[in-house]
Amino acid sequence: MSASRTLVAGVDVGGTNIQVGMVSGDHEVHDRGKVPTPTSGPDAVFDAVAELVADLDGDPVAVGVGIPGVVHAGQVLTVPNLAGWDADVDLVGGLTSRLDAPVTLGNDANVGLLGEWVAGAARGARDVLGLWLGTGVGGALVLDGRPYEGSRGSSGEIGHVQVQPGGAMCGCGRRGCVEAYAGRRMMAGAAHALVGAGRETRLFAIQDEEDRPRPTSSVWARALDEGDEMATQLVDSAVEHLGVAVGSAVNLLDVELVVVGGGLPEKLGQDLVDRIAAAAGPWMLRPSPELRFVVSSLGDDAGVVGAAALARAAVIAG
Amino acid sequence: MSASRTLVAGVDVGGTNIQVGMVSGDHEVHDRGKVPTPTSGPDAVFDAVAELVADLDGDPVAVGVGIPGVVHAGQVLTVPNLAGWDADVDLVGGLTSRLDAPVTLGNDANVGLLGEWVAGAARGARDVLGLWLGTGVGGALVLDGRPYEGSRGSSGEIGHVQVQPGGAMCGCGRRGCVEAYAGRRMMAGAAHALVGAGRETRLFAIQDEEDRPRPTSSVWARALDEGDEMATQLVDSAVEHLGVAVGSAVNLLDVELVVVGGGLPEKLGQDLVDRIAAAAGPWMLRPSPELRFVVSSLGDDAGVVGAAALARAAVIAG
Repeated sequence: MSASRTLVAGVDVGGTNIQVGMVSGDHEVHDRGKVPTPTSGPDAVFDAVAELVADLDGDPVAVGVGIPGVVHAGQVLTVPNLAGWDADVDLVGGLTSRLDAPVTLGNDANVGLLGEWVAGAARGARDVLGLWLGTGVGGALVLDGRPYEGSRGSSGEIGHVQVQPGGAMCGCGRRGCVEAYAGRRMMAGAAHALVGAGRETRLFAIQDEEDRPRPTSSVWARALDEGDEMATQLVDSAVEHLGVAVGSAVNLLDVELVVVGGGLPEKLGQDLVDRIAAAAGPWMLRPSPELRFVVSSLGDDAGVVGAAALARAAVIAG
Repeated sequence: MSASRTLVAGVDVGGTNIQVGMVSGDHEVHDRGKVPTPTSGPDAVFDAVAELVADLDGDPVAVGVGIPGVVHAGQVLTVPNLAGWDADVDLVGGLTSRLDAPVTLGNDANVGLLGEWVAGAARGARDVLGLWLGTGVGGALVLDGRPYEGSRGSSGEIGHVQVQPGGAMCGCGRRGCVEAYAGRRMMAGAAHALVGAGRETRLFAIQDEEDRPRPTSSVWARALDEGDEMATQLVDSAVEHLGVAVGSAVNLLDVELVVVGGGLPEKLGQDLVDRIAAAAGPWMLRPSPELRFVVSSLGDDAGVVGAAALARAAVIAG
């Protein structure tokens, strides 16, 4: 059986959903599954992952799992964004005991960029900044032709690059991180506050009409489409502040490519990415003439493909 | 002759001085030379370098040269800070024709960190941010166990990481770069402006007493030592803003080591570095528990040692 025909399962454990896919060596996703992320703790998540993988077509030789936490040298250091998880949870053990294949763990932002790098918008690039716009603002790096995870697996936190020290309050407790302006959670908070101050917006009406628990990317996209003034202003502000953070990152890293993914970029596409590029331009000292900004091309599959690629590399290397 | 006993000349071309040294394979500097950097253009600089190298004890098998410009794949892209230089100057040709040895070029900030990495304060570290406090604020990176230069040789520009967008004017034309607060040129400009506004300082009197053309690091150090209020405030501000920039860089890169060098750190030592570490701490999301801040240990030799190491590696690789 050639390596390209062996199947590896990729698992993307997000705060909202768990997505899985069966991936071949050419990074094609052959079968998919998805469930809401259980909120009752690690065991329920392990069970859900095992069930999703078992339901996929084919027998994986390995399973790769992207999680919203810090992974270093195969070990989980923290999982800050999942309810009921602490540092002592044995992810590898809990998953391996339920799956008949070796398990490799990675950080969700890192495996997302890995997916784009092996099979998507970042393919072939040597120095890449991945920028993920979701509930928060995440990031990941490929530097000098290989994924860069940092000394303890915590690299890529562009969401907490300062763009206005002492400015808007961020979920991390600091003031002025770019996530405070461009993360969907903080943008929704700002919208609530503005409504409280008497401003009007269609955001929350659209949220109700679309039966969403919060303003999702599709809610924001529709509000923009309807010309909602507050939504437009908040997205303008997000873009401006993302420009500052990305400009600072480019000055530090001289990347050749910025890949932008996540909910809102998937809805708004290259137009939003071009706006971020235009906002970043004035802050760059000496960008590469070849610097490009592109929207992610794998969408929801990026994490699944990247997690599978990580596991495949680990199995081959092992 | 063993590799460690072959001699390589290291050359550090700065805006003020050219320094050279004859360096053995164990990174020891055996002989040194130094002249003011000629301001009449490239040919005078080439001549000065050739003469300095010829005057050193021993026959170098290679010459490494650090320059204040962008070097990519051995080619010079720009030399922004030397009078009379433009992108068409053939540095390698001009130097090779005067020196009886192969010439390898590097960026000055990068070769400075390379020196600290092979033989100084950063020895053995895998992920390092070098922070150089001089006329401007420079930087360099070692990532994943190797020097990182970026896609076009322009990485490490931490001086132009934003710490207060729209804030103080920087020499680069932007407002709010950390160099606008922590580069000696801009700090001197602020001192001049404050004197113009009626504030008092001993900075310029000390400059005159020490017969310096501008407030050098030793002038600043003496003013601090005398308790000069304005100098103290400006250095406090530099430290605070450096903390923001370094905090952002650590969030992005998760380095294990920050090495701080340049004139003022050499005068004030680890105390200044500890202050920068303390200022950076509050901005860090999830620093490595092993993260350390140290003052450079090679001082003026860092560039010479690093340039020699670069040339030695090129000759061995070639």
